[in-house]
Amino acid sequence: MDKPVEKVFSYIDAHQDEYIELLKSFCAQPSVSAQNLGMKEMAQTVQNTLNGLGIKTEYLPTDGYPIIYGELPQGRGRTLTFYNHYDVQPPEPLELWESPPFEPTIKDGRIYARGVADNKGSFLSRVCAVDAYQKVCGDLPVNVKFITEGEEEVGSPHLDSFRVNYPDKLKTDGIVWEGGSKDINRGPLQVTLGYKGLCYLELRCRGANTDVHSANAAIVPSPAWRLINALGTMKNERDEITVDHYLDCLIPPTGQDMAYLQNLTFDEEATKKSLGIPAFINGLTGIPLKEKWLYQPTLNIAGFETGYTGKGDKTVLPCCAMCKMDLRLVPGQDAEQAYRLVRAHLDRRGYTDIEVVKLSGKNPFRTDNDSRLVKASLKNAEEIYGMPPSVYRSSPGTTAMGTFCGPTGIPAVSFGIDHAESNIHAPNENIYLEDFINGIKMTAAVMHDFGADD
Amino acid sequence: MDKPVEKVFSYIDAHQDEYIELLKSFCAQPSVSAQNLGMKEMAQTVQNTLNGLGIKTEYLPTDGYPIIYGELPQGRGRTLTFYNHYDVQPPEPLELWESPPFEPTIKDGRIYARGVADNKGSFLSRVCAVDAYQKVCGDLPVNVKFITEGEEEVGSPHLDSFRVNYPDKLKTDGIVWEGGSKDINRGPLQVTLGYKGLCYLELRCRGANTDVHSANAAIVPSPAWRLINALGTMKNERDEITVDHYLDCLIPPTGQDMAYLQNLTFDEEATKKSLGIPAFINGLTGIPLKEKWLYQPTLNIAGFETGYTGKGDKTVLPCCAMCKMDLRLVPGQDAEQAYRLVRAHLDRRGYTDIEVVKLSGKNPFRTDNDSRLVKASLKNAEEIYGMPPSVYRSSPGTTAMGTFCGPTGIPAVSFGIDHAESNIHAPNENIYLEDFINGIKMTAAVMHDFGADD
Repeated sequence: MDKPVEKVFSYIDAHQDEYIELLKSFCAQPSVSAQNLGMKEMAQTVQNTLNGLGIKTEYLPTDGYPIIYGELPQGRGRTLTFYNHYDVQPPEPLELWESPPFEPTIKDGRIYARGVADNKGSFLSRVCAVDAYQKVCGDLPVNVKFITEGEEEVGSPHLDSFRVNYPDKLKTDGIVWEGGSKDINRGPLQVTLGYKGLCYLELRCRGANTDVHSANAAIVPSPAWRLINALGTMKNERDEITVDHYLDCLIPPTGQDMAYLQNLTFDEEATKKSLGIPAFINGLTGIPLKEKWLYQPTLNIAGFETGYTGKGDKTVLPCCAMCKMDLRLVPGQDAEQAYRLVRAHLDRRGYTDIEVVKLSGKNPFRTDNDSRLVKASLKNAEEIYGMPPSVYRSSPGTTAMGTFCGPTGIPAVSFGIDHAESNIHAPNENIYLEDFINGIKMTAAVMHDFGADD
Repeated sequence: MDKPVEKVFSYIDAHQDEYIELLKSFCAQPSVSAQNLGMKEMAQTVQNTLNGLGIKTEYLPTDGYPIIYGELPQGRGRTLTFYNHYDVQPPEPLELWESPPFEPTIKDGRIYARGVADNKGSFLSRVCAVDAYQKVCGDLPVNVKFITEGEEEVGSPHLDSFRVNYPDKLKTDGIVWEGGSKDINRGPLQVTLGYKGLCYLELRCRGANTDVHSANAAIVPSPAWRLINALGTMKNERDEITVDHYLDCLIPPTGQDMAYLQNLTFDEEATKKSLGIPAFINGLTGIPLKEKWLYQPTLNIAGFETGYTGKGDKTVLPCCAMCKMDLRLVPGQDAEQAYRLVRAHLDRRGYTDIEVVKLSGKNPFRTDNDSRLVKASLKNAEEIYGMPPSVYRSSPGTTAMGTFCGPTGIPAVSFGIDHAESNIHAPNENIYLEDFINGIKMTAAVMHDFGADD
């Protein structure tokens, strides 16, 4: 390993308490974009933190929450951009948290808080890497840009406008994206080269103009039953999506895509045990399980609500029913097309009265496998974590990478600080402190190699 | 009309303000059995009110809420029992009430409050009739008994124990049951001679031990989809119940049952307009509509909840899903049998993991059409309301009448003070003040005729 990087690593080790305190302060500030909670304060904290590194920042308003943009040019060499977001998922259901979601709590080597994994820990691993590298070496090995948005958890609706309106700010040689888990055994680092897309829909069905006494259920139409019957036409009990023409346009995985699955670590038994499930869907295991996970689309019910759901009996015929669905998309699909296929499927069956609202959409993306950034990432992942990385050619999750990098083809990779039991988007979100410190080192080392002369 | 009854009617007219104030005070006291809200205070108020009539009351504890029993013997003649309940449905959703549910509000001749129709107005029409008859005539024409329970809205789980444990208190020549609407045109009084039964179920399906990031929806089982697919096997899009063997045991309506439908007033156009629906289920109209309404069982979804249902997107795979169902039962069915058929239907399809909890059950019932009580009720309904009553041989709603009167065969009728737009079990529950006053007169007149010499 290069001498300067070793010194940076030593500095990071010596200052880890300071970096962990910074992480705690970020997680103590709520920033729930879906609920407009603490967003202004969080944006200001991000800007102040970047300013503290000597980065020249700009507060770029959108119709939603601002993007905090920053750059630190070195006057020469390559440019590396860090994409992150400062918003987090809603913390509900609150009663399942073992410590309050916005009171960061350290226990058994882990830190628990909403957003600590997704993605305040990831963002600060970039920030702390820049800080440590500067403190040790003075200059950075690359020109650095930071793009930190506040709407990732609600579908990044204004990131595309940023791309279109600020072409100069987008100019870069590579992007390090947020995210990246270790597997359930905390073995190799996961390095991700692409993501599924996402189409988020809300389906609404209405009946009478008020809830009705259920004695009338024999004659008054039920929107709850209607929505359930409509959903029943969209997926069968074998988890096969049956929306008309939905699977027609899928691009099947290549031989190379399938080869990646062979080396992908995935401890099925440990994952099942951790989740408390007896089997995966359809009892899948091995390569077919990984293939479905990474390369097949989903049609998930994220929420469904109708009528009375409190304690005891209420004999009511509810007047409306609502379902939230998120659809993960693979190459060949796009978010607008997915929405249109669902709409047409319902219309064809007479469900024209069921309203379908597209709340957000992101397209799937895969980066160039042979880029300098991919090579620098895979090499350092192996050196720092002591074993070859687990390469995700196409992560089952979603980022705005497709919308953002797709049109320009900028190489992008993800590596991060969370792990398979980080409970992202769920109660008791957490990361290991050790992973946070290694994430800082990984970022510093990739900056160094990416900027080095050939 | 008999002279004494005319004097009682005059007394009721002269004291209507006093009776309406009493109604307001009852409705201002919350008494939500499903939420254990205000139940103790309400039971005490009922007891005090009956005591005030000179009735000897007893507070009979149960494992749930007490039954307030009272009797006022005259030393001779027939006995008439008034069954009512002092609990009400939960007021939710609160945001749809135009005035607070527990602040009785008079507007355009109606009084709005949770429970004013179901059934505090009905209960007080019996109380005020006894009061007026006593004030005018001294003695009552019948021995009177009051059975007032606090668990009707949660399925009357202890009413059957009362029946078994207190056979003497149950001895009577007839029961006037709660309830009874005018139709949407507020035409004839509805007199009811029987009710559907009810089986209230809660279905629960569990998956992983915590909510999971929806990126894993391709491989982690979804209890929401599983419950929806299971429900999809229980009813089809034509509203036909498809639970195995569910319809096998139904006793079809007799010629007499069908004849009642001819004279039953039901303004289809006004009802559709009031509910804001373009058509009834399957576009039914006329006799087939009334037949389905009164004589067919239902399988209603009263509530369904899973995952995130707040504002915006949350990309989560929920770990559990819950559905509340109420099943209205017709002669030939019973509540325990309905539960067992649903359980067996799910088991037969492999849904053994879906928990089915029977929250309450009541059997269907029809009373003897030729009893003295039926005749006294039909005669006075015609005289007081100025037109022949609308006879419901089998109401689409449910009471504990089946459990209570079925084993002994005591004649029972329902007549009451609400109307088709009373919004029973729904926001903005209301009755007309005029109907309340007529309900007092009707009760007094039926007491008089029921007690008269042949």
